[in-house]
Amino acid sequence: PMFQDVHVMIFIGFGFLMTFLKRYGFSSVGINLLLAAFGLQWGLLLQNIWHLDDGKIKLSIEKMINADFSTATVLISFGAVLGKTSPVQLLIMTLLEITTFCLNEHLAVGVLGASDVGASMTIHAFGAYFGLAVARVLYRPGLRNGHDNEGSVYHSDLFAMIGTVYLWMFWPSFNSAIAEPGTPQLMAITNTYFSLAACALAAYAMSSLVEHKGKLDMVHIQNATLAGGVAVGTCADMNIGPFGAMVIGVTAGVISTLGFKFLSPILASNLGIQDTCGVHNLHGMPGILGGLAGILAALLGRKEHVTPGIQAAALASSLGFALVGGAITGLIMKLPFWGQPADQNCFDDSIYWEVPEDEEEAGESLTQADHSKNKAEA
Amino acid sequence: PMFQDVHVMIFIGFGFLMTFLKRYGFSSVGINLLLAAFGLQWGLLLQNIWHLDDGKIKLSIEKMINADFSTATVLISFGAVLGKTSPVQLLIMTLLEITTFCLNEHLAVGVLGASDVGASMTIHAFGAYFGLAVARVLYRPGLRNGHDNEGSVYHSDLFAMIGTVYLWMFWPSFNSAIAEPGTPQLMAITNTYFSLAACALAAYAMSSLVEHKGKLDMVHIQNATLAGGVAVGTCADMNIGPFGAMVIGVTAGVISTLGFKFLSPILASNLGIQDTCGVHNLHGMPGILGGLAGILAALLGRKEHVTPGIQAAALASSLGFALVGGAITGLIMKLPFWGQPADQNCFDDSIYWEVPEDEEEAGESLTQADHSKNKAEA
Amino acid sequence: PMFQDVHVMIFIGFGFLMTFLKRYGFSSVGINLLLAAFGLQWGLLLQNIWHLDDGKIKLSIEKMINADFSTATVLISFGAVLGKTSPVQLLIMTLLEITTFCLNEHLAVGVLGASDVGASMTIHAFGAYFGLAVARVLYRPGLRNGHDNEGSVYHSDLFAMIGTVYLWMFWPSFNSAIAEPGTPQLMAITNTYFSLAACALAAYAMSSLVEHKGKLDMVHIQNATLAGGVAVGTCADMNIGPFGAMVIGVTAGVISTLGFKFLSPILASNLGIQDTCGVHNLHGMPGILGGLAGILAALLGRKEHVTPGIQAAALASSLGFALVGGAITGLIMKLPFWGQPADQNCFDDSIYWEVPEDEEEAGESLTQADHSKNKAEA
Repeated sequence: PMFQDVHVMIFIGFGFLMTFLKRYGFSSVGINLLLAAFGLQWGLLLQNIWHLDDGKIKLSIEKMINADFSTATVLISFGAVLGKTSPVQLLIMTLLEITTFCLNEHLAVGVLGASDVGASMTIHAFGAYFGLAVARVLYRPGLRNGHDNEGSVYHSDLFAMIGTVYLWMFWPSFNSAIAEPGTPQLMAITNTYFSLAACALAAYAMSSLVEHKGKLDMVHIQNATLAGGVAVGTCADMNIGPFGAMVIGVTAGVISTLGFKFLSPILASNLGIQDTCGVHNLHGMPGILGGLAGILAALLGRKEHVTPGIQAAALASSLGFALVGGAITGLIMKLPFWGQPADQNCFDDSIYWEVPEDEEEAGESLTQADHSKNKAEA
Repeated sequence: PMFQDVHVMIFIGFGFLMTFLKRYGFSSVGINLLLAAFGLQWGLLLQNIWHLDDGKIKLSIEKMINADFSTATVLISFGAVLGKTSPVQLLIMTLLEITTFCLNEHLAVGVLGASDVGASMTIHAFGAYFGLAVARVLYRPGLRNGHDNEGSVYHSDLFAMIGTVYLWMFWPSFNSAIAEPGTPQLMAITNTYFSLAACALAAYAMSSLVEHKGKLDMVHIQNATLAGGVAVGTCADMNIGPFGAMVIGVTAGVISTLGFKFLSPILASNLGIQDTCGVHNLHGMPGILGGLAGILAALLGRKEHVTPGIQAAALASSLGFALVGGAITGLIMKLPFWGQPADQNCFDDSIYWEVPEDEEEAGESLTQADHSKNKAEA
Repeated sequence: PMFQDVHVMIFIGFGFLMTFLKRYGFSSVGINLLLAAFGLQWGLLLQNIWHLDDGKIKLSIEKMINADFSTATVLISFGAVLGKTSPVQLLIMTLLEITTFCLNEHLAVGVLGASDVGASMTIHAFGAYFGLAVARVLYRPGLRNGHDNEGSVYHSDLFAMIGTVYLWMFWPSFNSAIAEPGTPQLMAITNTYFSLAACALAAYAMSSLVEHKGKLDMVHIQNATLAGGVAVGTCADMNIGPFGAMVIGVTAGVISTLGFKFLSPILASNLGIQDTCGVHNLHGMPGILGGLAGILAALLGRKEHVTPGIQAAALASSLGFALVGGAITGLIMKLPFWGQPADQNCFDDSIYWEVPEDEEEAGESLTQADHSKNKAEA
């Protein structure tokens, strides 16, 4: 059942969370499915190369959960480059990113023995910074001033909320899927639950504070409400208590909302990092926060056999692998023969999809027939 | 897994069921998430104040299910005042309603020992009449003739159907979540299943009968198909047999559809109760029906240790707490400093949300660019 | 939990998969719910007539899964005649099809003892050819050149993708729901998983190959990605290995995509089979492929007590019952007093539903107010 929940998060949650762009819904859901189907197989294959039993491929639910996890990193990075890359580029990214992920996870968890049950460091921070490094290499000066299609419409925001609500609901399963059954697993569920609930309230409050006239911004609600799930990941199965979990959740909600409002524009204009979905705010900073919380919890002795040094090394390893791996992957993706779309075709389904004819202009031309009549009358 | 199912109902089911309004989708889903996140924590806290173990907060899946249940009452009441209240007013309602719910549940189930496994009385009837009392106190004469935005559009009705289908599917889990494992739980599942199936057929038939030319009305299908789940709640774990469950389901489907068609307009015009989502028809009357069915089942001895008098007292207690608590809550919510929206701003996302610019008029202005051209040509 | 997953597939998966038509979303989801609610009860009743225990109806989760399965055949056939039949006609089809299904299943699995754990033959091939036979009998020459409303719009395709993603995710549960617990069930899950993943990649590749300029077609992605789940059904619990499962998946993805592109137009124009959703490509051919794969697996001895002859007989029986039963059902449905819609009213919600007024023309008239202004100005 945990496996099924994680599976739902990967396909429904991540898929629909990215449908907020007005003309990029087909690609968001469709390419998400493509990358997930490809990533699952590649992830399973790589794991079996690592852990061969008598030279034969063995399957288990646990390995399938791990394959789902490795795919999650790709979908996080996909968010950073959403709308600006071709399916072929993304398949290459999938290949390279899952490989790098396996290397890092083998080092951080397997060799060093760090504790990262909800994978704040090895999935979320890793996936985010990998994607941001790719986005930096693929920087498009032509989109410095934004793009007409880089925005949402009313219904596309509602589709994205389907993704948000699913991720919110099933995050406790994500963080507890590979926890030890019994008390640690129950603790992982309740800690995640408290962190998410506190984070959601913080995100609503912050969004209302930073926006004009106290309004709420849908982008913050779609994303920052989930930051608590990311940030509590590393210490989800540690004995941090409901109050500790809520402190982590509130911090995550606050920095995530502030990141969307103030940091993302700066990253785009000053550092050339165009982060379509704001993965830095949802996965990047909360992932690092999760790593730091894990170090603190280790210092306070909240889980046996967990030492601060090892946790710090795992965080550094995840960030290092992500940035170096992402930069190299970005350079390979930049090669001119992968069909990268031109600036003006970004964020547009119609270069990869047969879009229903009377909607090629995303709803506007729904009214073409009427307009023709109109013109005739005029 | 039962917990997860109930969780899905609360967040997806109730959230999307209320997206039917054409310009109020952000608020329906977004505020639903806010109230649920807040209500879960408040509900857990209150339960732990009731049942302190050695002065320490203890968590269990059962308590989390109970917190979900207490949140459900708030979301039901939210339906009655949807579109006419500010988030701050609703947070106050959440605080007071969950407190009242805990008092009533403690009395009805804890002290009196009534049987209400699917909570027809303590959640559905309670939540509905609480919300109706609030709506009565907040009566807006200015909306007597309706409001331009108080209606649905094609896609908003489809979003609402996501909610309906989820609630329909997972209702057996809702009614059996706190049943005793084994035969009573299986019975709760199958009874709910039969009641829902029969109710759905009855709702289709009635909708077709009362509408012009035998057409179906989406409002009836979205709501009345679920009334069977509400009505069978109290006696879900009693030995009423498939036939008994189906009789309850059919009755619920019929009165719910008739309520939408004939009773709601009368309530609005004569009694000043403006019930946006028609919770009286989905939760109120079917909830009372469930309570009455429980009394009848007790009379017929369908479950041991259940007596008609106690069941009747629980029903009366639920209604009493709901009406009195709702009226007091409504008076507090009516205080002038909670930011209640003016009549003309009701049912409109744009006072609380940054709505995508080209959609502020809910789809109409999608075509602004075309129109400008049009005008120029004209 | 398996039961809940199958239930989700039936209601959400099949329901939303059919919402792709631009003006038929209410009917797709609404009538899906009606048929499912009716079919579940009829299916349970029939099963209990078959297997009476002491003259009393007994319920179990297994019987409820079987009722869900029998309902699935109806929903598959519904896809073939979607938009061209009245609710009353479809209720009659439900009655007759579930009866025929029970006869065939009793013969193929009960008497002959064929193995069909994921029901490629008894559900998918049966449901598809039953529906196609009905569609052939109800052939509408007036729709030979298509119909204005027989197409999708941008948002309706996204709703349909909700259905696709759900079916994709939960298909492993569908194929393993009635497998023996333990190794066979785990094998059914992993085989289905591999077949689906391979099939999805094949569908994307083929769609890109056969479409103009290498674009993807949403219809292929919505449907052909699922063909692997259908095709691996019969041998899901056989020891075919990941590689065998992937070969089945790739083959299914390829023939399904080619079927949509080339075969469906031929069936419509030359044989008079107007298959609205293309069930022949998603369930028909992949179902037969599944049956053939089962025969091959039996030849290779991949499961004990399974013989090729029996498997072939079960496939033939399923097709025979489907075609004969479908033709007879079609003739009964063709009787003139069931309210079959006229050609020009096909694919249109507004003959059976009260459609929100300002949307009766599916979005176009959203702009009526603006247009009036426009005209005045002009």
